[in-house]
Formats: sequence, structure tokens, C-alpha cells
Amino acid sequence: MSVLAAVARRRAAGRDVVNLCVGEPSQGAPAPVRAALVRALEQGVGLGYSAAFGLPELRQRLSHWYAERYGLDVDAHRIALTTGSSGAFLLAFLAAFDAGDRVALARPGYPAYRNILSSLGCEVVELDCGPAERYQPTPELLEAAGPLDGLVVASPANPTGTMLDADRMAALAAWCADAGVRLVSDEIYHGITDRDPSTPPGADPPAPGVSALASDPTAVVVSSFSKYWGMTGWRLGWAVLPDDLVAPVDALAGNYALCPPVPSMYAALAAFQPESLIEAEAAVAAHAEARRRMLARVGELGWGDVAPADGAFYVWADISPVLGRHPDSRAWCTALLEQHDVGLTPGLDFDPVAGGTHVRVSLAPGAHAVDRAVERILRFQTALAG
Amino acid sequence: MSVLAAVARRRAAGRDVVNLCVGEPSQGAPAPVRAALVRALEQGVGLGYSAAFGLPELRQRLSHWYAERYGLDVDAHRIALTTGSSGAFLLAFLAAFDAGDRVALARPGYPAYRNILSSLGCEVVELDCGPAERYQPTPELLEAAGPLDGLVVASPANPTGTMLDADRMAALAAWCADAGVRLVSDEIYHGITDRDPSTPPGADPPAPGVSALASDPTAVVVSSFSKYWGMTGWRLGWAVLPDDLVAPVDALAGNYALCPPVPSMYAALAAFQPESLIEAEAAVAAHAEARRRMLARVGELGWGDVAPADGAFYVWADISPVLGRHPDSRAWCTALLEQHDVGLTPGLDFDPVAGGTHVRVSLAPGAHAVDRAVERILRFQTALAG
Repeated sequence: MSVLAAVARRRAAGRDVVNLCVGEPSQGAPAPVRAALVRALEQGVGLGYSAAFGLPELRQRLSHWYAERYGLDVDAHRIALTTGSSGAFLLAFLAAFDAGDRVALARPGYPAYRNILSSLGCEVVELDCGPAERYQPTPELLEAAGPLDGLVVASPANPTGTMLDADRMAALAAWCADAGVRLVSDEIYHGITDRDPSTPPGADPPAPGVSALASDPTAVVVSSFSKYWGMTGWRLGWAVLPDDLVAPVDALAGNYALCPPVPSMYAALAAFQPESLIEAEAAVAAHAEARRRMLARVGELGWGDVAPADGAFYVWADISPVLGRHPDSRAWCTALLEQHDVGLTPGLDFDPVAGGTHVRVSLAPGAHAVDRAVERILRFQTALAG
Repeated sequence: MSVLAAVARRRAAGRDVVNLCVGEPSQGAPAPVRAALVRALEQGVGLGYSAAFGLPELRQRLSHWYAERYGLDVDAHRIALTTGSSGAFLLAFLAAFDAGDRVALARPGYPAYRNILSSLGCEVVELDCGPAERYQPTPELLEAAGPLDGLVVASPANPTGTMLDADRMAALAAWCADAGVRLVSDEIYHGITDRDPSTPPGADPPAPGVSALASDPTAVVVSSFSKYWGMTGWRLGWAVLPDDLVAPVDALAGNYALCPPVPSMYAALAAFQPESLIEAEAAVAAHAEARRRMLARVGELGWGDVAPADGAFYVWADISPVLGRHPDSRAWCTALLEQHDVGLTPGLDFDPVAGGTHVRVSLAPGAHAVDRAVERILRFQTALAG
């Protein structure tokens, strides 16, 4: 976050910063989504509390979504709308785990999972997921982790963009079922993929990603309108819950949140219209173009391992070969920003062990921004080496 | 909640239910608030993530609000916008207390405080606050409660509507300061008052309530756009934090919530316009009329102690003299609903000890609804006694 603050300061001072730190897509909510909320507001629709799990018609629509996009049968009574995926994680963690429970997740990974779990008194077990595992958990890593109560997977993942294909997801689900371990699957970047690794290239439409529900109907799945639909600030996500967690999460939601943001739910009812999906898919294509551009140029940059991103809008890279005199990626990112006005996110928040030699590159600003950033980084690295 | 579900079922079946269970005002968001969001949507304002504490211009506006309404100097850097007051309580409790801490609050009281604190591993210490204390904590009750780490007060309170006047708030704040106890003040019903008990009747404009900040600038204050402005479903609240909690709550908010709902913040920027305040004050006047009507008729009803509500839109009453053959208020409320289509909230959620003989009457549906309900309750009680 300190890099983001520095980016804002430099921009306020009139500098032309290429900011590849952002964690949100740039397209904004689809036009029909905005129009639906305008209509609701103008018609005087009541925007009082909804039920704790949200508007029934939106839960029903999401049930259809699972049938349409995934071929999965997910009854609406198991779908809880939440205040962003953040709200879903909090409620799911509270309902599924007790203080002292051991919950495994990939390192590198999204720091909020670790932080929320720790603050609830759970023991976070980090699985060291590197290039050999495509940065995703494996049954072998789980086997070696000692007794566990939960596993959190994310596919596509933040910060690596890598995905679990159907076989790997099924293997993890089977391992969890055998071991009596609760599987929580973060699917918030679903839909933002080049291709689904389990389907042949060119499959049409591209699959949104493999849902844990395909292998394990009792998995907890968390998803969101934030990323695919570009609705980050609207704070609307959802959880698909196994039957045993429906009543506990409902009770917790009534105490912790009362209900999700109602204006956002009326807007999101229009997220499934063809015109909304066309906008979402245009953003997916732009992310894919930026991803291809970035991955094509990492050779030139002389970096180390770069995660083979399948989706989301991030690239995770080892920059130890080019650190030069800088002790770690934080210092390197600070110098890059100060000298060449390029913002990258240093890796320590995502990986407390190896993050000091890694950076996360956000592709959300698009291919042109990626090209401009690479040119500047090359100049920065030439000067460092000289 | 089971009463609410039964009310919904009966209404769906075409019954004319007078529902005095509701926990939200009926007026809805002020017209300028709705119009501000329509404008933002039509102008294509970006609705991506805000800072964790929300839009700076809204935090600044709230800082002015404290100066205008309370004569208090509250710098905007201490104001965190949150996902409803629920989000503020969660973050404040996480930042202020550790597992095992002993936190006191009034019984009867709002059940979510108890439930959130318990789920975070805090020990909830219930203070038995009855008619003699006007249902509010006192230094004597705190003295008798053993060692404490925190005190949560609510004024006006849910379910009793009673308020702490300036002297009693100051006495509690002084006791907390002496004892090193963190004071958390729920001020979400501020503004919805007949009169401030500390100001002479007829003072103009009526004071919104006594803020804990007037006695203790280091208190944690939680408030909301939900009640006074009728914006419950918008999920927008705020916390005023002491300096030592600003950084911890900011870090927690970044992990637990990312940011408050951005559309709601753009809307709320218009909440302080004179036209918005006129709408809010009209609702306050309607609540006051309903409150006077209800309190004027409790004699007829033959109930026991009735809390002397100063504000909010609830009346809390002991119905043990009229329970008849019913074992508790839950059974009595169920029978009342089934036989006469009046919904009241049984008291056990608010008071696990004495709630079995108490009910909460919501005044939000207005004076006419109160009158209709009282007529039906009188018939119900006559039949019961007969």
C-alpha cells in the first residue's frame, strides 16, 4: 500500500506514472448494470434491509449462472450474497473453522486470507508452492503439512495468475474428502482467463475456470461481481455453501453484516444480460492481450522464474537476477518508481519468505501500459547494471 | 427473525398484518441522496475501490457534521467510513479488544454486539440495567462487574429507546478513564429523539443526542446513515477513532472489507443538504408522534414496566401481567400474530434473562399503525383473560 500512496503522490505532482500495482480492472461496471440501478432509484424501489443472504431473485439468477456457465446444479438456497468476497470469506471462515484450527493455503497468495484467519485465531499453514507446482497446492504438499482442518485454494490465483485444471482440482478435493479437511475455493477471478487449462485451446466460449463444486459439491466457493464484471467498489460477492453451513452462515450474516449492499444487488440483476457480458468479455480480451505482451517480454528483462499465468490480471516474477545493489524487491520497486515512474508491487505481502526477490505486475492497465512499463524497466535495469 | 418470517408468510397469504417488528424506518433515502447517485451513475463516475476509510470528501463532510450538530472538533483523519455500523463494530472490536478481554454492555441490549464479541473470543459481561437505571449502565454496575477491558453503551438504545444524558455519559466516561476501560459508544440512533434529556424541552433545533466524544475524545464512536437518514440497505456507517486505533483499524479494514460500498458513499454526499435533512426530520417527527401515542396507551394495556423511551423508534415493555396462559413472550407474540395479525418482537434476543416476559414494539410503521395494533392487542388480551 505504501507504493500505491507514492504513486498517488507522484501523480498529484504531475508525473506520468505507469502504475502496474492496481488490483482491479479498469472497465467499470457494465452500462446495463448502471442503468438498472438508475431505474431502481428513479422508480423509488425500496432500498431497506434485504434478507441476510440478499435478494432472492439475484440468488436465483446466480443459480442459473452455475448451470449455464459450469453445467453445475447449485440450488439458490445454498447461495449467500455477501459484502464483496471479503464478506464471504469472513463468514465462511467463522462458520467453518474454530480458533486453533490449522488451515493451509498457497504461498505466494493473497495476504487477506492469512490475515483474516490469523485474526480469528486460526493457525495458517503456508504451503511452499513454486514453479514446480505451478504455484498451486498439491496432495504431496498437503500430506507433508501435518494435520489440517481446512484448505483455501484460489484459481486463477492472486498474485500468480496460475490455475488448477480439472484433474488437479479433483485431486485436491479427493485428498480433502479423505482427510476430512474443509475445502474453500476462491473463484473471484473466474471468467478472466486466456483459456481453461483443462479444455483445448480455441474452445468457444472459453471456460470460466474449474469450480471446486465440480469435484466436491460440499466445497465452500467464494466469488464476486468485482473482477469479471469490473464492480470492485460495489462490494458485492457471494458464497456457495454446503448444506451444513447454510444455517450457521445465515446466523452469522445477520449479526455481522445484516445484509449485502442493496443498491448493488439491484444493479447486479442486470449483470447477466448479453450486453453486460459483452462488456465483461471485452475486458477479458484486453487482459489476455496484456498478459501475452508481458509474458512475451520477460526474456528481454532477464528476470528469473515467471509464473505461467493462465488468468486473472497479474504476473508474478522473480527479479533476483536484476536486483543489482538493492537489498530486496521493495527497495528496487521504490527506486524504479522514483527514477522511472513505474509502479510494481513488491512481493513480501504475498510471500513472506521469497517475496523479497519477487514482484507482482498488474496487467489491468492494458497492453500499451505494459509496453511502456517494460521500456522504462529496461532503462532502469541498464542503469543499475552499469 | 422467526416472527418476521411468519409476518411475511401471513402477508403473502393476503392477511392485513400490523407489523411492529421492523428494525428500520420506513421513509427510505432522501430524494437528494437518490438523485446524487443517479447523477454519479449517469456521469460515469468511477466506482472502483476507494481508500479503506472511504471517500475523503465524505469523511471531511462528517467532520463538519460533528462541528455543526455537536459543537465537537473531530478531525477527518479519525473518521473511518464502514460497511454499515456493523462493519464499524467488527473493526473496532477487533482493533480494541483481544480474545479473553471482558467487555461490558447493558442487558437488555442489541444482540449483535454480544454475538460478535463472543465469536471473537471476548467475554461478554452483561450489566443488569432495569427501570431503576433507565435501562442504561451506571458506574455502580461497572464497579460490581469485576475487572473490565471495555464498555459498550448505546444511546438512544435498542430495544429500550432510553438515552444517557450529558451527566450520566460523563460519569461513565470518567469511570472508564479511571479504570483504563475502552469506551465504545453506539450513536446510530442519534437524531431520532423527542428531546435530548440534557436540554430544556423546546430547545431548537433538538439536540441529536449526547456523544461520548463530548466527555471523552478518545472514545470509539460508531454511527450510521441507516436510521436517521433511512438508508438501511445502503450499508454505510462510520467510526470515529482515537488516534491509537486509526492505523490498526485501517490495516484491518484493508483486509476485512477493502472499502465501504462506493455507490452509497457518492449518494451520502448529498445527505447533508437542507432538503435531505428536512426529510430526515419529518421521519423523526413521525417517530415522535408514534412514540407519544404508544406511551400514552400503555396504561390501558395493563402492562408492567415500560421503558421511558427518549429516542430511536422502539418501546420495551414487561408484559408479564398479561401473559395469561402463555409461558413466555415468544408464545404470547406467536398467538397474537396468529389470532390478531399483530407482529411484536419477543424479548429473549435482547435480554436472555428477563426477555421471556418482555416485548419490543417498533414505532417505525407510525402512529396509525400503533393505534391499530393497540386495539387488536386489547381484544387479544381480553380474550386471554376471559
